[in-house]
Amino acid sequence: VLTVADIGEQGLIERIKPFCEAGSIGDDAAILDVAPGHRLVVTSDMLIETVHFSDRTTPPFSVGWRAVAANLSDLAAMGAVPLGVTVALGLPSSTRWAWLEDLYRGMAACLRSHGGAIVGGDFSRAAQRTVAITALGQLRPAEAIYRHTATPGMSVVVTGPHGASRAGLALLQAEIEVNGADEETLAAAQTWIRAHQEPLPRLDVIARMRSLIEPGSQVAIAGMDSSDGLANALWQIAHSSQVGMDIVRSRLPLPPHLSAVVGPEQALDWALYGGEDFELVLCLPTELANRLQGIVTVIGTTNDSSSVELVDAAESRSLSHESFRHF
Amino acid sequence: VLTVADIGEQGLIERIKPFCEAGSIGDDAAILDVAPGHRLVVTSDMLIETVHFSDRTTPPFSVGWRAVAANLSDLAAMGAVPLGVTVALGLPSSTRWAWLEDLYRGMAACLRSHGGAIVGGDFSRAAQRTVAITALGQLRPAEAIYRHTATPGMSVVVTGPHGASRAGLALLQAEIEVNGADEETLAAAQTWIRAHQEPLPRLDVIARMRSLIEPGSQVAIAGMDSSDGLANALWQIAHSSQVGMDIVRSRLPLPPHLSAVVGPEQALDWALYGGEDFELVLCLPTELANRLQGIVTVIGTTNDSSSVELVDAAESRSLSHESFRHF
Repeated sequence: VLTVADIGEQGLIERIKPFCEAGSIGDDAAILDVAPGHRLVVTSDMLIETVHFSDRTTPPFSVGWRAVAANLSDLAAMGAVPLGVTVALGLPSSTRWAWLEDLYRGMAACLRSHGGAIVGGDFSRAAQRTVAITALGQLRPAEAIYRHTATPGMSVVVTGPHGASRAGLALLQAEIEVNGADEETLAAAQTWIRAHQEPLPRLDVIARMRSLIEPGSQVAIAGMDSSDGLANALWQIAHSSQVGMDIVRSRLPLPPHLSAVVGPEQALDWALYGGEDFELVLCLPTELANRLQGIVTVIGTTNDSSSVELVDAAESRSLSHESFRHF
Repeated sequence: VLTVADIGEQGLIERIKPFCEAGSIGDDAAILDVAPGHRLVVTSDMLIETVHFSDRTTPPFSVGWRAVAANLSDLAAMGAVPLGVTVALGLPSSTRWAWLEDLYRGMAACLRSHGGAIVGGDFSRAAQRTVAITALGQLRPAEAIYRHTATPGMSVVVTGPHGASRAGLALLQAEIEVNGADEETLAAAQTWIRAHQEPLPRLDVIARMRSLIEPGSQVAIAGMDSSDGLANALWQIAHSSQVGMDIVRSRLPLPPHLSAVVGPEQALDWALYGGEDFELVLCLPTELANRLQGIVTVIGTTNDSSSVELVDAAESRSLSHESFRHF
């Protein structure tokens, strides 16, 4: 079996070149261009084996895809368009080249679909497989999306269902199972696994939203992505903007068939706290939210209180601030 | 003892804010500006405990300093000026806050001295302390320094002595000792330790060189930094540029007193292969090299052969391509 130790650093650099932007590898740093009139956007994420992925739940192609997708999702959350990524890898000497090649295939595939290219990186020996990605993007100054700019009276929207990634993980870890279920449920279960392994950064929603906003006009949009859970995103935006929110329980888009498989309480819990769905959570002027019908789902409104309430016909309860704990 | 697990991710973000660019932390990504007419330069490095540093040889302040210095050195090697860095950290739950605070102190101190600020990052649980830094810089298109642009007849220069970092490591690991040596040697030994723990990125040389070149004039400069060893840098430049080099052994600047302590052969070996001195190795037009007298040391010339030769009065030998092996 060919390992990274057999190949050595110079050999690895040669082997990964086909996955990288032509001409970008081989100097101490890479050179890129930010378009005139644009600002630079930068975000870094680190994925670590056993903490963020394992061979049991995530094949190397998916590790690469997810690592890039998580970073591109952060760019989307800022309203930016991708320029490129750097990839610093920590690898045990015994890591197989086949694993690494699939990792690069996954990263390159996600970049090909969503924009950007690998422009640099680093290899290091490590006890655990470690993937540290920095993504670079650009935006016009008026297009930046922050967490702290929500105001009372905005529509709170999400770009897709929540809880699917957590459900996919549960399936992969045999925490739940769908054996013997009908075909539709089995097909739905496959989409949960895919949501966990190869999430889609919602750059498409940003592009669509831009196309609806007249160039030069300043439309206040607040938001972030839901990588640490929907409840966390709602809480972060509310807290940063010093607004409250009423979120209507029945409007939360859940993955089809999930409630039937795990029960409505578990499905709701995963939707709120599961994390890693990589959708966008945005506060928009109601008029813009209406024009985005079919692309986003309105789940509530901002108000001048100081709490995020989950409301429905029967009861109202405050959303606690639970999230994926990193330590 | 207060650990990172006690503090949690949100608490850590609050605690490191004083070390970061004001206003840059708190969104999914940071926003920066590249000056008009400038290109963006980006480089990533990963430092891992037991591979690149250990408590025995590198206190946390120095781990932070070195991690930033290594990245700024890559920017200097491209001819760029720093804009900022992102810092992704992998930490065991038991990591003490005091360790982390000193790490940030070291990073901030190096940035304060040499330019740039911490603009973003990520925390993750990990088995080994892992520091992944991405540095961003900018340059005017004509100022970029590449490895592949050397031509025959240029002066090969270095910006300082080589071997000091390796000698400092040897002292810290008790591989060599200077007990009972005279005061001058003891003082020199302290500079070797400092060279290992807190190397200086040579952005000053780039700034000085720019001040000597008329704005708008295109002067061909090739080069890289010597982080993986002087021999490696010479070999990489020669190989990328398809030139040969004659390097004059007696002109190689060694750290004062090193030959006396470890013998001339060991000193030469460390100068060529020790690595991590983070000086610049440049190929310059001879006229420019002459104007940089006192700032750089001319160690040889490029030629149209295909080998890098170490020459002196007695003998000539080819420099083999040994370097710090990452796996």
